[in-house]
Amino acid sequence: MNQIITIGREFGSGGREFGRRLAEELGYEYYDKEIIDEISARTDLSVEYIHQIIENKPHNLLPITVGKSFTYVDHHTLNQLQKVYGEQMQVIRDMAEKSNCVIVGRCASYILKDQKPFRIFVHADMDSRVRRCMEHMDGSEGFTAKQMKRHIKQVDKARAKYFHFYTERKWGDRSNYDLCVNTTDVVIKDIVPVIAKLFKN
Amino acid sequence: MNQIITIGREFGSGGREFGRRLAEELGYEYYDKEIIDEISARTDLSVEYIHQIIENKPHNLLPITVGKSFTYVDHHTLNQLQKVYGEQMQVIRDMAEKSNCVIVGRCASYILKDQKPFRIFVHADMDSRVRRCMEHMDGSEGFTAKQMKRHIKQVDKARAKYFHFYTERKWGDRSNYDLCVNTTDVVIKDIVPVIAKLFKN
Repeated sequence: MNQIITIGREFGSGGREFGRRLAEELGYEYYDKEIIDEISARTDLSVEYIHQIIENKPHNLLPITVGKSFTYVDHHTLNQLQKVYGEQMQVIRDMAEKSNCVIVGRCASYILKDQKPFRIFVHADMDSRVRRCMEHMDGSEGFTAKQMKRHIKQVDKARAKYFHFYTERKWGDRSNYDLCVNTTDVVIKDIVPVIAKLFKN
Repeated sequence: MNQIITIGREFGSGGREFGRRLAEELGYEYYDKEIIDEISARTDLSVEYIHQIIENKPHNLLPITVGKSFTYVDHHTLNQLQKVYGEQMQVIRDMAEKSNCVIVGRCASYILKDQKPFRIFVHADMDSRVRRCMEHMDGSEGFTAKQMKRHIKQVDKARAKYFHFYTERKWGDRSNYDLCVNTTDVVIKDIVPVIAKLFKN
């Protein structure tokens, strides 16, 4: 069976860099935004639309109940969401079947649970994440540190809701991962070769 | 400055074995029960009494307020607790100053925070912890799996309260650690040499 490593990550923790370097170090395939490109190729939906659907909005699409007397569901949008999520499951399973790989985000740890992936969660304290985003994030030039902190919290809140929506588990809870790595004050390219040894014989 | 590694651990996760093997692998001093022996040597208190005071009972010693009108504190016991905790702080600081070391439990990650120890938390799922305890714990012969599960929960609850009492932080929360290692289905002696590489140049 292929070795599958999944990476969950707090925004700004350097989780994506961690995943990319880990894949390079091990010579594994690396999947991140490629998943959305592939869903787009398999459906008639644009990358932008899929991105919005699968990362930011599932919690807005839940049935709304007011005083237990009125329920509203936007069926079209809910259908789109299910279609995209179904396609995403298939894309991720196909990727995991093809070869050893590192997959970032997308509830891959849950989708592939029967394949027993090695599940890593990357996190860091808020100050370090703000610093990392101010230095590295595309389009961060216009942000103050306060605005960046708000942005980080918003992205993480969306990730947590997305994860919980599909898995009914708590995003970032250590019990859902094999290894939680705190990247506060850590140089990611220094730590990755050590973690990689977990997968080398 | 010495390299200090602290190990927090869920009961039955193999955290103590993890710490012991890590110390052996690195050639560091290892401190666990030795801390209580040293407190006993420095005070007139027995090992058993200290053990009870510092691991199991702090939450029972908090002021009791009934209807905001009546407060009761057992001053003698509270004083003993403060004396033991103060002594423990000093013992741990002395140990950290002497040489590189691995310290298991005792809020060492918090007590030594100015020395920036590398903070590891070891955990595992409940089934695996019950299995590990049934196989390895002294005196486990009389326990059924159900009783063992209850015992594990009790010990962890006491550890969480003890940790929170002194640190005002949440025990086991990943943000308080540099690395959280899930030992479910893991052979500890296989994983330790890899983790040890984090500390070798």
